[in-house]
Amino acid sequence: MKPAVRVTITGAAGNIGYAAAFRIAAGGMLGTDQPIILQLIEIEPALDALRGVEMELRDCAFPLLKDIISTADINIGFKDVDYALLIGSRPRTKGMERSDLLSANGKIFGPQGRAINDHASRDVKVLVVGNPANTNALIAMSNAPDISPTQFTSMMRLDHNRAISQLSTKTRIPVTKIEHMALWGNHSLTQYPDISHCMVDGKSANSLVNESWYRNEFIPKVQKRGAEIINARGASSAASAASAAIDHMRDWALGTANDAWISMGIVSTGDYGIAKGLMYSFPVRCKNGTYEVIQGLSMDDFSVKMAKASEAELLEEREAVKDLL
Amino acid sequence: MKPAVRVTITGAAGNIGYAAAFRIAAGGMLGTDQPIILQLIEIEPALDALRGVEMELRDCAFPLLKDIISTADINIGFKDVDYALLIGSRPRTKGMERSDLLSANGKIFGPQGRAINDHASRDVKVLVVGNPANTNALIAMSNAPDISPTQFTSMMRLDHNRAISQLSTKTRIPVTKIEHMALWGNHSLTQYPDISHCMVDGKSANSLVNESWYRNEFIPKVQKRGAEIINARGASSAASAASAAIDHMRDWALGTANDAWISMGIVSTGDYGIAKGLMYSFPVRCKNGTYEVIQGLSMDDFSVKMAKASEAELLEEREAVKDLL
Repeated sequence: MKPAVRVTITGAAGNIGYAAAFRIAAGGMLGTDQPIILQLIEIEPALDALRGVEMELRDCAFPLLKDIISTADINIGFKDVDYALLIGSRPRTKGMERSDLLSANGKIFGPQGRAINDHASRDVKVLVVGNPANTNALIAMSNAPDISPTQFTSMMRLDHNRAISQLSTKTRIPVTKIEHMALWGNHSLTQYPDISHCMVDGKSANSLVNESWYRNEFIPKVQKRGAEIINARGASSAASAASAAIDHMRDWALGTANDAWISMGIVSTGDYGIAKGLMYSFPVRCKNGTYEVIQGLSMDDFSVKMAKASEAELLEEREAVKDLL
Repeated sequence: MKPAVRVTITGAAGNIGYAAAFRIAAGGMLGTDQPIILQLIEIEPALDALRGVEMELRDCAFPLLKDIISTADINIGFKDVDYALLIGSRPRTKGMERSDLLSANGKIFGPQGRAINDHASRDVKVLVVGNPANTNALIAMSNAPDISPTQFTSMMRLDHNRAISQLSTKTRIPVTKIEHMALWGNHSLTQYPDISHCMVDGKSANSLVNESWYRNEFIPKVQKRGAEIINARGASSAASAASAAIDHMRDWALGTANDAWISMGIVSTGDYGIAKGLMYSFPVRCKNGTYEVIQGLSMDDFSVKMAKASEAELLEEREAVKDLL
């Protein structure tokens, strides 16, 4: 049996954390041969609920789950962690300005970055799910100077999966036969789901759908899918967000298949002209626990315009939190 | 690739159904080589929420998930189903008498039994999770005369897993080293978690814990665990119930390991002196898609008393719903 690895989940009593924890404990993220210690973090007022989550996890008698640590202390919660899922964040409430939102979250992700810097495994992989995810990840990364910036990522996989699902529905081709989807930019309404490199059952996606559908229906549908879910469910995406977080971590840790692409928010090193140091989503492949950006893609004027618009938004977000970086 | 199998979930927009659906779609129940068609059933007022669940499932782009059918029509929802998880039920509300509860649920599980009889695969496996689970399963079974009674079961796996977890905590031995737990009777406060055959890391459980702890702490703790979870979480067990349902179906479909025991509510054929025809929990092993009761266990006076008390309750429940059988 492999030695156990430590997986931290923040916001573990929230809806996404709750949906993620049981799948992770069952082996759905790191494989059914990988024992796990779960380190669950919540804010003080949610500790009773977190105790209930811990009780339910124990009630499952998961063979892989070696221990559970529940805490409000981030220095304990991130101690020796190998995989950190930063799910908890401050949601936008009525009347809250964007700058207030960014700064309220900065107060969460700055200290978490420092705690990771001081206590996590030196090989830790960090995924930020809590919104605004890209800029929250940037803040956490900036507060962890002893950890490589490449160990901090933000979640675009839900958008990536949604884009594949929408293209599958439109073309009536199974999701397993859709390759080379690319999501660019910010996990926000400016995100750019790019099908221009997609192959659908061996055919170019562009040859199967028309441009008007792509620009006027597909792109807004993917961008606004979160609101559509809220309207239907009366609650925001939870199990699908948890599933995407699991996909992201699994592929990052265990590698992507052959020539598969996924999309991850990563620190830009200037690829495709995106400002260095921004936490921006690129199409990547993963191997041996690292990612690499898919290189050499042709970007037409529309793609450049869309990618740049999302970059501009992220530059503004960065400016708004510069005191926290 | 194997042909897809059909999995029906009732109450699919409820908390247990929601927790189960995504794990099943990810391959957590029938294996990562088994394609699945999900058939989700809800009552009319929950169809909007169900549409949201379906949208989220699609948003996951699960490779194994070939199709989703969402419906309030049980004749559609049970069409050709191979695995049916009957989760939705009428919960007990304030001031409701037990007889009212049983009869309200009879109105759900009678028609579901008939729909399964008329439309399901002839090899269907049915698991009733919705409470009162044993008697609901009895009602469904009784309304499906063309399906073998052995294809209807009720869930005791959550109690079984809880019992293993409690014994693990007490003895500080991992759950993987606890064998031969047995849960007898009704999924109710009369259930009997029986450690008298348990081996804990090769030692008899009885030799590791004292009788007073066993009778005065362990048994009530397992029996009342549901209420303890509600107190902590402010909501009833959801993900742990879903996990137990997945365990139950997986082991029934794919078999239990070597000499492992699990507990399932099954129709009694008179084993251990339990009235024939009751839906009662016994320790079983599973192979080739069938279960067999563990035979020849010695039952001391305490065990007989406990097992009989739960039988008496189930006989009363059966009497209360006799018009529905």
